Amino acid sequence: MQWTDGATDEQGVRERPFRVGDVPGLLWTPTGTRPRSLVLIGHGGASHKRSAYVVSLARRLVRHRGMAAVAIDGPNHGERHVGERDGKWLTAGIADQVVLEWQTVVDAVQALDQVGDTPVGYWGLSMGARFGVPLMAREPRIRAGVVGLSGPRKPEAPIAKAAAGVSCPVLVLLQWDDELVERAAVLALFDALGSTDKRMYVHVGRHQAVPPEAFDASEAFLSARLNGAAD
Amino acid sequence: MQWTDGATDEQGVRERPFRVGDVPGLLWTPTGTRPRSLVLIGHGGASHKRSAYVVSLARRLVRHRGMAAVAIDGPNHGERHVGERDGKWLTAGIADQVVLEWQTVVDAVQALDQVGDTPVGYWGLSMGARFGVPLMAREPRIRAGVVGLSGPRKPEAPIAKAAAGVSCPVLVLLQWDDELVERAAVLALFDALGSTDKRMYVHVGRHQAVPPEAFDASEAFLSARLNGAAD
Repeated sequence: MQWTDGATDEQGVRERPFRVGDVPGLLWTPTGTRPRSLVLIGHGGASHKRSAYVVSLARRLVRHRGMAAVAIDGPNHGERHVGERDGKWLTAGIADQVVLEWQTVVDAVQALDQVGDTPVGYWGLSMGARFGVPLMAREPRIRAGVVGLSGPRKPEAPIAKAAAGVSCPVLVLLQWDDELVERAAVLALFDALGSTDKRMYVHVGRHQAVPPEAFDASEAFLSARLNGAAD
Repeated sequence: MQWTDGATDEQGVRERPFRVGDVPGLLWTPTGTRPRSLVLIGHGGASHKRSAYVVSLARRLVRHRGMAAVAIDGPNHGERHVGERDGKWLTAGIADQVVLEWQTVVDAVQALDQVGDTPVGYWGLSMGARFGVPLMAREPRIRAGVVGLSGPRKPEAPIAKAAAGVSCPVLVLLQWDDELVERAAVLALFDALGSTDKRMYVHVGRHQAVPPEAFDASEAFLSARLNGAAD
């Protein structure tokens, strides 16, 4: 893990850019105290690690809940953008690659003295769910997740198979008027999840109109499951 | 409105049995202060105005949020039970009758010095939603509602037609493993609601296993919409 330029301290939140191998990321931690837990934030398609909703979610997790958060650019996104907007980078093995990238990043972040072996959660919608569900299925360190705005079009789709392997508590988010993802796909994802502790919150609005209530619920859910009932 | 025997004062909550015409009910108010708003609680089939979840919800609304709550026995339920368990009392006009009963009860409760013209909300699942959706559609005093565990089996069902006429904020509850009500019916109810401010929370479990989180969400939703953002 290599720190890169641009660290900031603002309102109790330290933000530090880093690289792990070829993967650029951002780490947010509370200044002065060790975080109680760590949330991985997987951005959606056409977004990146510094998109407004990613930074906003990360900062509120640190400020309100004493957690740490980390985001990385997905393949062909953010600093890793190589100009292919036609979807050719979305190969069959792309989810496997992203799972390995996240696992390497968790190794590196947990090895930091100022973070350590805290409980890990995941948050990601749309493309962030497409990669996050396989990650949750394979990575036992992840103890809670928020995913949504994605799901299988067919029962044999990879995300449906992966969902059955997820056992941690999950909150699923669905946008009722989503113009990109069918309601039935998100319902199928929820149904397929192997978790006994799962719930789904449905809000009105289109794909990119996820309301503040969904972020409030995300924060509360991750905090309750990772920091404990006392939070 | 006639008070009947059995009033109690406990932990800041005054509970008073009453009758309005032939309809027996219970009113819960804060002791010592006027309530900030009033929630009508419509019980489900085979329950009644003093079922545990009705009393529990009423008492938490009073204690946590300074609201009042009122419940009445539905036709053929509770003190109005006349022995017909075969559904013959479920006539085509039963919803109209229950709507009128609720409207008369709201008139009577709002006329009380200790309540007055406060904002009104509704809470009812299953049979409580079947009657509550037409009530919300016709009663402009109702400014927010929580319904669920019910919905149209066919698009021409009365509850579907009524739902389009609802315009107040609504939270819909769905039990994913409901053995009595199809998921598609509740999804259709949510879709049909005319409200622009609507959301749906889906929990796992069977019809009668509505979890504590659903009651937490009900309390928070009704309080935010009726008591205001400051609550």
